[in-house]
Amino acid sequence: MPSRSIRLAVIPGDGIGPEVVAEGLKVLAAIGPASGLTFEQTHYDLGAARWHRTGETLPDSVLEELRGQDVILLGAVGDPSVPSGVLERGLLLRARFELDHYVNLRPVKLFPGVRTPLADVGPDDIDMIVVREGTEGPYTGVGGVLRKGTPHEIATQESVNTAFGVERVVRYAFEKAAARPRKKLTLVHKDNVLTFAGELYQRVVKQVGAEYPQVSVDYCHVDAATMFFVNQPQRFDVVVTDNLFGDIITDIGAAIAGGIGLAASGNVNPGGAAPSMFEPVHGSAPDIAGQGKADPTATILSVAMLLDHVGAADAARRVERAVSDDLSERAGLGARSTAQIGDAIAKRVSG
Amino acid sequence: MPSRSIRLAVIPGDGIGPEVVAEGLKVLAAIGPASGLTFEQTHYDLGAARWHRTGETLPDSVLEELRGQDVILLGAVGDPSVPSGVLERGLLLRARFELDHYVNLRPVKLFPGVRTPLADVGPDDIDMIVVREGTEGPYTGVGGVLRKGTPHEIATQESVNTAFGVERVVRYAFEKAAARPRKKLTLVHKDNVLTFAGELYQRVVKQVGAEYPQVSVDYCHVDAATMFFVNQPQRFDVVVTDNLFGDIITDIGAAIAGGIGLAASGNVNPGGAAPSMFEPVHGSAPDIAGQGKADPTATILSVAMLLDHVGAADAARRVERAVSDDLSERAGLGARSTAQIGDAIAKRVSG
Ligand SMILES: CC(C)[C@H](C(=O)O)[C@@H](O)C(=O)O
Ligand SMILES: CC(C)[C@H](C(=O)O)[C@@H](O)C(=O)O
Repeated sequence: MPSRSIRLAVIPGDGIGPEVVAEGLKVLAAIGPASGLTFEQTHYDLGAARWHRTGETLPDSVLEELRGQDVILLGAVGDPSVPSGVLERGLLLRARFELDHYVNLRPVKLFPGVRTPLADVGPDDIDMIVVREGTEGPYTGVGGVLRKGTPHEIATQESVNTAFGVERVVRYAFEKAAARPRKKLTLVHKDNVLTFAGELYQRVVKQVGAEYPQVSVDYCHVDAATMFFVNQPQRFDVVVTDNLFGDIITDIGAAIAGGIGLAASGNVNPGGAAPSMFEPVHGSAPDIAGQGKADPTATILSVAMLLDHVGAADAARRVERAVSDDLSERAGLGARSTAQIGDAIAKRVSG
Repeated sequence: MPSRSIRLAVIPGDGIGPEVVAEGLKVLAAIGPASGLTFEQTHYDLGAARWHRTGETLPDSVLEELRGQDVILLGAVGDPSVPSGVLERGLLLRARFELDHYVNLRPVKLFPGVRTPLADVGPDDIDMIVVREGTEGPYTGVGGVLRKGTPHEIATQESVNTAFGVERVVRYAFEKAAARPRKKLTLVHKDNVLTFAGELYQRVVKQVGAEYPQVSVDYCHVDAATMFFVNQPQRFDVVVTDNLFGDIITDIGAAIAGGIGLAASGNVNPGGAAPSMFEPVHGSAPDIAGQGKADPTATILSVAMLLDHVGAADAARRVERAVSDDLSERAGLGARSTAQIGDAIAKRVSG
């Protein structure tokens, strides 16, 4: 079978980003022709160093090049030497918004053998997918400051939610739920306080839900949801929520499923009008950068999501299985370096 | 010593509200003259029943009466028969805003003997106070809907933050931190995305912090904070945060400290220009209302906070100790009713 060629953009980024991305690519290489795919890689130098050198975060020209790629793998961006928000908004969020990544897909799954901070909870109890809206809500950047530096200063942030934007992400979540054994969808919002946005989400879930009678629908305020993540994670199958609530609950999700070192994510443009971008949920962790201490597992699991996205489901399952096998044996092993973990998983994948 | 008279407004509310408030008042009665206080109670019929009867949530005339009280004890409001948000916004939030409860004080403390869902964590690991802003942020109700019901619908919610509002709550938090042994203050926000509001909070913390050199200051994005609540709760001493983030993280706080049945709170107007209001963090729990199943502990701990607020610190400590002793023996006891728990704690308080 001739292999299909995929244009892969790689953005290693800052801190531990390059280290974990190297292991992700190692695993991708190990899959090799077995995936039925070959990857033509282009690496993009974006992040703190470039910003210091040129003042650029994600220049228009690079954005245009990215649009011509099939899929993107990103490590992490951000550095203490750059003012907070500059790289996050200028690079990461800009990519999500410009490439219309309206689905931010974040599985929360406890693998066998992984230590969770929760007592009396096992892999059967934590297995959900959070479908976080990725292109609106409080992330739009709309807002401003008036009378800055005076006692009368006012700073605003606006959450913008559209029927168009809510409908498409809710529909995606129903599709996901319908394809899973439990077929349960939970809307997480705060509709008793954020009444305008909350009512829109509720109404859309009801309308779209009418097309999915096989999916049971639940609702949970975001504050209660965080509590249930900790004391009743079994409650959740597929969760759909807005951009900010999704950001918050997926970090608790990461915590209960064994830590941020294992949490993968996809910024997905489901229609394929622009490339989707896969990245670990964790940040650039400058404190441990360059020491070979970072856990590349989240990136490797993001590579599995990437493979799924480009249609290589078998290869994706193989990577997941390799990760799962590796995780189940970790408890018995001593500390391993970033590269050692990558090697071990790559070996399982090719073996 | 002649006893000081305190005008106490009681709002039992809906669902389990009246049941838990009854136990709170029982404990207050048990303290009796020992507190140096007598409480003149006025009960207010507010909540779902009144709304169904009259359409009123918190009428102006009642609000004016409340202003004449010294302090308020509230049970819980909300019922499935009332559209989401009506009572929350019309009664609870209206009281918080009109009475300028700019400090929403929420201790997160694991009492000895209480079961936490976290593994390997004990009372020494969880002992913090969250100072949640109570009168601005995304809770203002500012926002709206355009083109409702059409494919072009837009719903907005605005977070409004003022130098005035941020400064006063941050100052309160520094005072709290300075008075505690660890003297550590953590600002929780999301300044890399909500750049306008986040920068205001950061700047104010820096400015006010200069007056408290003995307090060490830390910062944590809200998403990371939720993770640390679960896997490193030791990180936190006093937390200051905005209205919405505070709502969310205090529910995780409740979860890790043994559940929502134990979480107390105070809506505080520190200057005393209007009465402060104490309430359990939990809601009206209509599913278990009227069955004597609700845990009144959160309300009783809220009564302790109320006693502190009106200057009866010894009585407050006595109630806390009684609760702590009761909690340390609960594991060995079978299920007790709401009234049985109230009786047991009242007995310890008077004993
Ligand atoms: C870095 C930051 C802008 C980002 C977000 O808030 O979305 C991160 O926390 C995430 O969850 O991917
Ligand atoms: C009932 C609701 C409006 C309220 C809030 O969001 O503040 C509650 O969740 C709380 O934390 O007291």
